[in-house]
Amino acid sequence: MSTINYSASIMCGDLANLETTIQEIERVGIDALHIDILDGKFSPSMPLGLETVRRVRQVTDLPMDAHIMTMNNEYFVNEMLDIGAESVTFHVETTLHIDRLVNLAKKAGAKVGVALNPATSLSVLEFILPEVDSVCLMLINPGYATDKGEKQVPYALEKVRRLRALIDDFGLNVGLQVDGRVSLEVIPDLVRVGATNLVLGSTSLFIPGRTLEENKRLLDEAVAAGTVS
Amino acid sequence: MSTINYSASIMCGDLANLETTIQEIERVGIDALHIDILDGKFSPSMPLGLETVRRVRQVTDLPMDAHIMTMNNEYFVNEMLDIGAESVTFHVETTLHIDRLVNLAKKAGAKVGVALNPATSLSVLEFILPEVDSVCLMLINPGYATDKGEKQVPYALEKVRRLRALIDDFGLNVGLQVDGRVSLEVIPDLVRVGATNLVLGSTSLFIPGRTLEENKRLLDEAVAAGTVS
Amino acid sequence: MSTINYSASIMCGDLANLETTIQEIERVGIDALHIDILDGKFSPSMPLGLETVRRVRQVTDLPMDAHIMTMNNEYFVNEMLDIGAESVTFHVETTLHIDRLVNLAKKAGAKVGVALNPATSLSVLEFILPEVDSVCLMLINPGYATDKGEKQVPYALEKVRRLRALIDDFGLNVGLQVDGRVSLEVIPDLVRVGATNLVLGSTSLFIPGRTLEENKRLLDEAVAAGTVS
Amino acid sequence: MSTINYSASIMCGDLANLETTIQEIERVGIDALHIDILDGKFSPSMPLGLETVRRVRQVTDLPMDAHIMTMNNEYFVNEMLDIGAESVTFHVETTLHIDRLVNLAKKAGAKVGVALNPATSLSVLEFILPEVDSVCLMLINPGYATDKGEKQVPYALEKVRRLRALIDDFGLNVGLQVDGRVSLEVIPDLVRVGATNLVLGSTSLFIPGRTLEENKRLLDEAVAAGTVS
Amino acid sequence: MSTINYSASIMCGDLANLETTIQEIERVGIDALHIDILDGKFSPSMPLGLETVRRVRQVTDLPMDAHIMTMNNEYFVNEMLDIGAESVTFHVETTLHIDRLVNLAKKAGAKVGVALNPATSLSVLEFILPEVDSVCLMLINPGYATDKGEKQVPYALEKVRRLRALIDDFGLNVGLQVDGRVSLEVIPDLVRVGATNLVLGSTSLFIPGRTLEENKRLLDEAVAAGTVS
Amino acid sequence: MSTINYSASIMCGDLANLETTIQEIERVGIDALHIDILDGKFSPSMPLGLETVRRVRQVTDLPMDAHIMTMNNEYFVNEMLDIGAESVTFHVETTLHIDRLVNLAKKAGAKVGVALNPATSLSVLEFILPEVDSVCLMLINPGYATDKGEKQVPYALEKVRRLRALIDDFGLNVGLQVDGRVSLEVIPDLVRVGATNLVLGSTSLFIPGRTLEENKRLLDEAVAAGTVS
Repeated sequence: MSTINYSASIMCGDLANLETTIQEIERVGIDALHIDILDGKFSPSMPLGLETVRRVRQVTDLPMDAHIMTMNNEYFVNEMLDIGAESVTFHVETTLHIDRLVNLAKKAGAKVGVALNPATSLSVLEFILPEVDSVCLMLINPGYATDKGEKQVPYALEKVRRLRALIDDFGLNVGLQVDGRVSLEVIPDLVRVGATNLVLGSTSLFIPGRTLEENKRLLDEAVAAGTVS
Repeated sequence: MSTINYSASIMCGDLANLETTIQEIERVGIDALHIDILDGKFSPSMPLGLETVRRVRQVTDLPMDAHIMTMNNEYFVNEMLDIGAESVTFHVETTLHIDRLVNLAKKAGAKVGVALNPATSLSVLEFILPEVDSVCLMLINPGYATDKGEKQVPYALEKVRRLRALIDDFGLNVGLQVDGRVSLEVIPDLVRVGATNLVLGSTSLFIPGRTLEENKRLLDEAVAAGTVS
Repeated sequence: MSTINYSASIMCGDLANLETTIQEIERVGIDALHIDILDGKFSPSMPLGLETVRRVRQVTDLPMDAHIMTMNNEYFVNEMLDIGAESVTFHVETTLHIDRLVNLAKKAGAKVGVALNPATSLSVLEFILPEVDSVCLMLINPGYATDKGEKQVPYALEKVRRLRALIDDFGLNVGLQVDGRVSLEVIPDLVRVGATNLVLGSTSLFIPGRTLEENKRLLDEAVAAGTVS
Repeated sequence: MSTINYSASIMCGDLANLETTIQEIERVGIDALHIDILDGKFSPSMPLGLETVRRVRQVTDLPMDAHIMTMNNEYFVNEMLDIGAESVTFHVETTLHIDRLVNLAKKAGAKVGVALNPATSLSVLEFILPEVDSVCLMLINPGYATDKGEKQVPYALEKVRRLRALIDDFGLNVGLQVDGRVSLEVIPDLVRVGATNLVLGSTSLFIPGRTLEENKRLLDEAVAAGTVS
Repeated sequence: MSTINYSASIMCGDLANLETTIQEIERVGIDALHIDILDGKFSPSMPLGLETVRRVRQVTDLPMDAHIMTMNNEYFVNEMLDIGAESVTFHVETTLHIDRLVNLAKKAGAKVGVALNPATSLSVLEFILPEVDSVCLMLINPGYATDKGEKQVPYALEKVRRLRALIDDFGLNVGLQVDGRVSLEVIPDLVRVGATNLVLGSTSLFIPGRTLEENKRLLDEAVAAGTVS
Repeated sequence: MSTINYSASIMCGDLANLETTIQEIERVGIDALHIDILDGKFSPSMPLGLETVRRVRQVTDLPMDAHIMTMNNEYFVNEMLDIGAESVTFHVETTLHIDRLVNLAKKAGAKVGVALNPATSLSVLEFILPEVDSVCLMLINPGYATDKGEKQVPYALEKVRRLRALIDDFGLNVGLQVDGRVSLEVIPDLVRVGATNLVLGSTSLFIPGRTLEENKRLLDEAVAAGTVS
């Protein structure tokens, strides 16, 4: 269980009182703040702005885990590095010079990940997998999460399983992050097939009607259920 | 002086504690919240996100004055109307169907304005001026305000003066908003030549080292200096 | 009245039986077929395709009056010239090399016009007006005509009047086409203030419940009402 | 042979007399109307318009099989669903959110397919193959079919064979449509290696100089030649 | 005559032996090297590359007069400033933040101009004219000059005349550059109506069959013919 | 060793004296001139212009090996074919109709190659590999080579090795070109794992401080070191 990383989506906190929200997140023992950067063009969503993120940086020492979903990833990667994110992850589907962006982030001293839309083949990782710190698999379509009844794609577990095999076959130490409706119900299975980093939102850490502390305890149990031998 | 409208830029508040900031703004008697929406493509800036704005809507009844600076204004106008902005202003330079967007906002019951970059000729207003509630003149280049020493364009007063004449010649009741380094120093002149709506940022209401209350008092004095006979 | 030109929008005919529709249009004495070319990007509409238009060319000798509303006007102007349109009109708002497109059409032996969205200032015509055969004023927002209750922009007559004055001041022989809800009700006024070419759709030649012949007679009366001394 | 589906390209019919053409198609016993939607930007071709297609819907109960080749597939998929197409197929090369579009069509009750340009690797199907009803393999470059002498790509049969193996390996019931110069000559081979759905154009159902009925009979024979034992 | 500035288009020199060409240009007494930067997207032309220009900078002290015709003027203005151009001119039609680019060049210590396509109205200069060092009027369509028989637009002289009046009315000291088929034949008239800076190409300084020296003498005569009281 | 092809990057020659540079290249026995065409949009670089290349064509009979890195490859492929390049290579990442461009070049009588960015998977070659004359593997990020300390990507040799296996498995005679910091130090290894065509720049043929002749000798030695049994 110690190998599972928690990344709390700040979008699910109280955006009018971010400092308070972040203090709570710190208190319950979360590993990082997940920060979704969309530009309204990658998909119809632009939840957070850069000045908000810059201010978040000032009120916490938690690592910032930036997930960049835009049409101009180089601009936004540079902005997040300038703000001081400890990790930047960008989508391969909208990046022409993938290797370059990976190196640009590394040279800045940040960890770097690539993210894949649900239908994107793992073949895009053929050469870049050994160069990144993590891969983020989107299990819903990013930026369209407004439909409350939306479920993960049916091939979610299968995709995690195949990526796990790929990482292990290469003998690599690359994080496997899962994002999108990562709920208490599916976490055991996701962990079982090889996910090592969970993006936590409204179906886990931020389930309404319970405190973050209570949700955190349930989360730990769900992870434990997936990791016991 | 009663005819001068104050619009406080929330970007200049404390983005980690927006609810508190907004309560202060309400307390000192400001007419509206100015909300800058940029997409990182119109210019290299994306200060605020839509989920942040949606949350702001829940914590205040102050009118929201949205200033949309994007490449896809129709999407963002619709989002701001959906969130419940009382007024939406978009740039003519990036809008193909200007008349349509004006009507779309009107039909939604919102006030509507068009914004012009500094160098944009007033000739673009030839037919749309009588159809809008306000015109916003950018007096600095929008989205590039990071250079602290930046000043207003030298033709700022002249542009306000000509637009004032145009509005008066048409016999219209159209607001004249000025945006960009609208400082205590230049407010008397801006008001004198015909501005009726001031976007307030770090050089007026949010001057560091003073309370909003103190800045508000200086602001009233600056406006008064420009309006006396 | 002899100076008023009729251009019948084929979009309003029976698109499953175009040959029959066109024969009817020929029979009632219309001057040209108005062909709307949109690409789904200029605005959300792509009513007609180029292969359809190519086939129309084979079944009629009526002049084709192409109205091109696209993001890549050069491609579509060339296609329409290749098909054999007698006249091509394109929007200035999406054309970088306006003079070039005007000349390209002229060299091909076609008449050429420029079209303006409702809010577009007449200042765009400063140098090109003497070079074109006609100007098309859009009186509704092109490609959004699905809302049946939509009316012409309130400044429709004023815009026609100013363009008429401009043409007359230059002493030019340039056609003044009006497009968008050019109904029997507004035709007298449009003609009175200077329109010389009417695009005929569902509110004039194609009013449902009457034959084209009956509508044509009412149309002639409306034009006459606008032209009598 | 009963498992082979016929989809007749309406582009090859008489576009000035579509109703008549469609009645003929119905009479000879074709399974669906193939409707090519191009926007002039995906490739230099925009054969048919949406209003034409909307009218086609009114004059036939034949299933409509929409093939969308555009830069903004979401818009055109939505339009075709709104018109009432029974099946929509879109290109993966110009779709950022493939999984989303597949689901959007399914939720609307339509069948859904993905299309691949000739050179596109089958690896793009890694996760989406079990989610679709069919895959359309373009065997010529879409939208460039004006060169009459153009042949299918040399690797056409090999690509069909590999996709057939992929579908069978997965144990899936996914249609395998072939499009582009699917002539009487190559149909036996295409069927033999696994195609189940034929797009019929000027080299099969619409071969000039023969009636649809005669061509249909030859078509059946070609299919039979590919299916025997 | 002393007030007329000569800018020699290096595109018309020997591109395989630029150093020699430039030495000749220096010898005959030309004021500046005119450097056309097109990106193949503004129009179908990309005559010169940046590494070529960087090398030109090393072999001459003649002022470089960069004429930027691209879709991303900010990038190319920055490149030309970095290379060390003494003057940069960019097109207003493809610039969203005109005022910003003007200032960016000024802060770098360069002279700055704006360029207008033939059909572009002078109204775009309403506020920026006093801020620039020069205005470049394109008298042919930029990037399409391959047609040898192409002439200047018929309204060339009229446009120069109006801009001259505008500059004089403002009491400004702004250069008026003319570009495109500025031939020995039209130079007297262009100078007479107010041009002060001539872009010299294949119809003046580089007329084939004569030395640069001979052409320079004819050029001086043409200018003199236009300037004599 | 006779199977290794040398392609000298003209960008590394003296751009102010290209004719002289090319004569030297011819003298030392190089197989082709490598011509990098970038548009400033694919990546921030536009080293050479088309008019320069057109002039190069006039002063040499050496084969021109065009490497096209742009957002509109069809335009530039056509331009290079028009100029008379013996070989054109374009990037698959920015080409929608890959098969079409391959055929377009072949029909023009040129050799054709596809180029891959460092991180691009070899799966993109699944169907097109047998159709091309060569594949160009970028071993650095194209257009960003300004950082002098930049090294080849760590997976350079592995990628060459896999492509070599693929070509051999197919039994094909396809050239394997390597581009980017192809230095004397790495050439033996690159040749050993299967490269057959070397793009020569500032780390091989154009190493400063030595004549081309001296560099050529060292180059031959490096190649020999990689080819000896």
